[in-house]
Amino acid sequence: MVDILHRVGIKAPLTEVYKAVATREGVAGWWTERTTGESKVGGALQFRFTSGDTDIGGFEMKVLALEPERHVGWQVVNGPEEWIGTTIGFDLRQEGEYVILLFRHQGWKEAVEFMHHCSTKWAVFLMSLKQLVETGRGLPNPHDTKIDNWN
Amino acid sequence: MVDILHRVGIKAPLTEVYKAVATREGVAGWWTERTTGESKVGGALQFRFTSGDTDIGGFEMKVLALEPERHVGWQVVNGPEEWIGTTIGFDLRQEGEYVILLFRHQGWKEAVEFMHHCSTKWAVFLMSLKQLVETGRGLPNPHDTKIDNWN
Repeated sequence: MVDILHRVGIKAPLTEVYKAVATREGVAGWWTERTTGESKVGGALQFRFTSGDTDIGGFEMKVLALEPERHVGWQVVNGPEEWIGTTIGFDLRQEGEYVILLFRHQGWKEAVEFMHHCSTKWAVFLMSLKQLVETGRGLPNPHDTKIDNWN
Repeated sequence: MVDILHRVGIKAPLTEVYKAVATREGVAGWWTERTTGESKVGGALQFRFTSGDTDIGGFEMKVLALEPERHVGWQVVNGPEEWIGTTIGFDLRQEGEYVILLFRHQGWKEAVEFMHHCSTKWAVFLMSLKQLVETGRGLPNPHDTKIDNWN
C-alpha cells in the first residue's frame, strides 16, 4: 500500500476551511466546477473534469465522515480503476494563525505512474483550496493549472 | 518505507530539462538560489534556504548518478534528521512534445507530518522547475510559493 500525503496551512477561520471540504459548493470552488450530489454521511458526490470542451472523466465518492471543523472522509466508488476503493481524508486543526490541513489519499495498490501524476495534481488542487479560502477565488477545473500531458 | 512521488510534463528539449536537474546552476534556478558544491558523481551539493533574512536550514546531497538525458540521483548526507539517508531521483524521458519527469524521494522511515509538508512543497518546486525550463524563470527560494506555517 502506498499513500499520497500533503500538508497546507491556510490563514482563514477553521469554519471556512471546513466548509470548503465538507460542502458541494465548497469543493466546486477548488477541485472541479462540475460537482454534483449530496455531501452527507452515506451520500455520494460526483466530480467531472473537462479539457477544452471534452469531458475527460471523473470520480464518484461515497461520503464516509463529516466531523465539523475536524475531518472529512470519502471513499472512491466509481472512476479510474486505480482509484476504486481508495480513501481520501482531510484532517483540520488550528495552529496559531493557520488552519493546518493534512490530506491523505490512501489504499493505492501500486505506485503506478498515474499515482505520481495524482500526487502532484492533488498538491496543485490543495493550493487552489488555500487560495479559495484566503482570497475568495480558487482554480477548480477547467481553470486548473496543468502539470503534464495527462492534464 | 514511504515515498514521495510526483510527475510533471515539460514542453522543452530533453537536454534543457536534464540541465535543470543535473547542474548546480540549473537547480539554483528552481529549488534554492543558495546552491553550492559540485554536481559530479561522488561530489556533493549544498542547498540553503532563507525566510526573510533568516537562514532556515538546508540539505547536503551526495551525487549518486548523472546519466545524461535520463536520470539524476542524490542521497541526503546532511539536513533534518528525517531526510538523512533518503534518496532523491529524477527520471526523464520524451513523450510526444513533453519531457516527462518522474520524481521520487524515497526511504522515509515514517509518514510523519513533516513528510506531508515536503510532499506538497516538492510539487510546488517541480512546478517551479517546469516554469524555469518553459519560460526562463523559476521560483527558487527565497521567491518560492509558501504553502503553510513551515514555509
